[in-house]
Amino acid sequence: MARINDHYLKLKAGYLFTEIARRVKSFQAAHPEAKIIRLGIGDVTQPLAPAVVRGLHAAVDEMASTETFRGYGPEPGYDFLTELIAASDYRERGIAMSPDEIFVSDGGKSDSANIQEIFAPDCVVAVMDPVYPVYVDSNVMAGRAGTLDEAGRYSDFLYLPCTADNGFQPALPSRHVDLIYLCYPNNPTGAVMTRETLARWIDYARRERAVILYDAAYEAYVREAGVPRSIYEVAGAREVAIEFRSFSKTAGFTGTRCAFTVVPKDLHGRSAAGESVSLNALWLRRQSTKFNGVPYIVQRAAAAVYTEEGRRQVRGQIDYYMDNAAIIRAGVEAVGLTAYGGRNAPYIWVKTPRGVSSWEFFDKLLTEAHVVGTPGAGFGPSGEGYFRLTAFGRRDQTEEAVDRIKKRLTL
Amino acid sequence: MARINDHYLKLKAGYLFTEIARRVKSFQAAHPEAKIIRLGIGDVTQPLAPAVVRGLHAAVDEMASTETFRGYGPEPGYDFLTELIAASDYRERGIAMSPDEIFVSDGGKSDSANIQEIFAPDCVVAVMDPVYPVYVDSNVMAGRAGTLDEAGRYSDFLYLPCTADNGFQPALPSRHVDLIYLCYPNNPTGAVMTRETLARWIDYARRERAVILYDAAYEAYVREAGVPRSIYEVAGAREVAIEFRSFSKTAGFTGTRCAFTVVPKDLHGRSAAGESVSLNALWLRRQSTKFNGVPYIVQRAAAAVYTEEGRRQVRGQIDYYMDNAAIIRAGVEAVGLTAYGGRNAPYIWVKTPRGVSSWEFFDKLLTEAHVVGTPGAGFGPSGEGYFRLTAFGRRDQTEEAVDRIKKRLTL
Repeated sequence: MARINDHYLKLKAGYLFTEIARRVKSFQAAHPEAKIIRLGIGDVTQPLAPAVVRGLHAAVDEMASTETFRGYGPEPGYDFLTELIAASDYRERGIAMSPDEIFVSDGGKSDSANIQEIFAPDCVVAVMDPVYPVYVDSNVMAGRAGTLDEAGRYSDFLYLPCTADNGFQPALPSRHVDLIYLCYPNNPTGAVMTRETLARWIDYARRERAVILYDAAYEAYVREAGVPRSIYEVAGAREVAIEFRSFSKTAGFTGTRCAFTVVPKDLHGRSAAGESVSLNALWLRRQSTKFNGVPYIVQRAAAAVYTEEGRRQVRGQIDYYMDNAAIIRAGVEAVGLTAYGGRNAPYIWVKTPRGVSSWEFFDKLLTEAHVVGTPGAGFGPSGEGYFRLTAFGRRDQTEEAVDRIKKRLTL
Repeated sequence: MARINDHYLKLKAGYLFTEIARRVKSFQAAHPEAKIIRLGIGDVTQPLAPAVVRGLHAAVDEMASTETFRGYGPEPGYDFLTELIAASDYRERGIAMSPDEIFVSDGGKSDSANIQEIFAPDCVVAVMDPVYPVYVDSNVMAGRAGTLDEAGRYSDFLYLPCTADNGFQPALPSRHVDLIYLCYPNNPTGAVMTRETLARWIDYARRERAVILYDAAYEAYVREAGVPRSIYEVAGAREVAIEFRSFSKTAGFTGTRCAFTVVPKDLHGRSAAGESVSLNALWLRRQSTKFNGVPYIVQRAAAAVYTEEGRRQVRGQIDYYMDNAAIIRAGVEAVGLTAYGGRNAPYIWVKTPRGVSSWEFFDKLLTEAHVVGTPGAGFGPSGEGYFRLTAFGRRDQTEEAVDRIKKRLTL
């Protein structure tokens, strides 16, 4: 038998959402009459916008004719899409951006998992805690983790606790790190980072020659003026930051699959010999070698998001989800729970009652209200004592869930 | 600046098709009147089959309605597709296969590049020469290559020369290897491997506890009875082989992106501690962590390939390309060149005239006949002295290219 990559054996056994699915299935089997409402996984429920649907149908028709059929496209995406992104998401907002700094992909999950490949295996990784598990697991698989302790922390990562005590704003690393994963608006806490705080991180990265891997998948949910939607709104970011964006939460593409990653040409790494190497060139090589581009029809669908009609329609979807967020936050606060987030993000981060663990709260909410959420501990040790509810449900279900929480949940 | 993955610096500078594009562009600029015909890159030209187009439109309509909208799907693919694949591509042909051994993905390129991640970094890799560059480059990036010599070979890979002298059938490795990349029907030589020869490779792999990574992307082009279309047609393969398949060349999906990889549950690797580990479980973990599945609409399109109408239509496309192959092979033979392949594969592998290098032949064919092919040397040192033409062009263009070769090429 060929030798396997032993680092895989260091991964925690169950993926969070697999364990949730197991408990829900078991409860449903024991209580077949229970109508379970799922506010757990961050998946959208609104159908694709009419403009996107029309774009898809038109592109499918192109694929049906010899004259307009498309085979292999450019690995980083068609020009029509990278140009739209550079112009609409960046230049229109006053941020310098060239289309060849945009890499279209099948998902923010893929990109944020794969990006670590272009860095040295001994790079020191800093992650927020709680955190989207993909940043951690992809670095465990690559051998950057060390050993796992009983609290669920790997010895070689620097964890950046984000709790109510620090307003979900991590302190700057106390030692040198090379790669820093930041996610704002944050999943799971729903927090945002101000321009001033972000500037301090950029200063740190410049000083330590670190790279910030900035996940802005939820940027479309920012409501408050002055809250940055892109790290490149802050001076100096082009020299230290890679940004991940996605159509999943912006335009309901979780099942349609399109995202993009920005790797500015001002961003460089260093070889063992001390040479400066363009990270844009390395990522282009990675994508050209291991990826064959996003389906043409899906890129056309993404382009339709940028039409006037498309923008208006996806904005309407985001408003819908943010109204859900307000309903959930008001509901849990009405029963005396403390809640965070939900104002510039589709996640409501609920403090569990004193002495109740996040998995106990999960079971309690499931058995008493038949509502599924996500235990904070599933996102990392500092998530213990918190619980995530998502605003991506249908309105009637969201209202019903809040109603049950008010009527049935014993605190 | 953060330290980069230095292995990237060991990659050969230019990707083959980038260099071809550069030369074609330069020639076209100097000769704007030349009508260049491209028989170089292996990209299809026939539009999607009507059954596939209908499947796509129907799926797009599902995405437009709240009741039928699909968000995140299962990472390894929807059951409707994995069940169809297991039944139609395997069980109907007498091969045992379970749907959870099938992993649907966005491309054979992605899978054949990513598969090495689940193996130890010090695994010894054997590759055919000439070879599809992705197998080599993905292992270079992972640090398994050693140093590059002047002939273009990496010191730590075992190269398996495939030339006319051995009928494009590599000899078994002369020493122990862990991972063996085989591709049949072969890109670029167009050769196939008999069941008996494949059985010897399976014996070798069992003896050496190696894993065969079998690329069967061109299986639909097999014409001759008795030539295996899947490695699992041969006894013992389930314990030693992973198979890559794709809809790209089978159903014209190069721009639509759908493929699958088979990892049998009988296949195991070994941990450093000597434990047996399921490769199916490792690949599931890899895909669940780093991939979010293929677009729902594309999976529905792939499913449409298996309808009675879909099968008939894609078979018609393959017949069309194989008629092109016969035209090309007869044409180059008519001018006195020796040609291989093109009978169970869409590639014709032409021997260049004595003393003419494959890049010289590329330039000659481009300047004299305005036809673009692929120099054999681009696929590896043993490809020197050969030249690849593909059957994926349109009929009129293919006939015109052959006509020009007959009339204009000086030999």
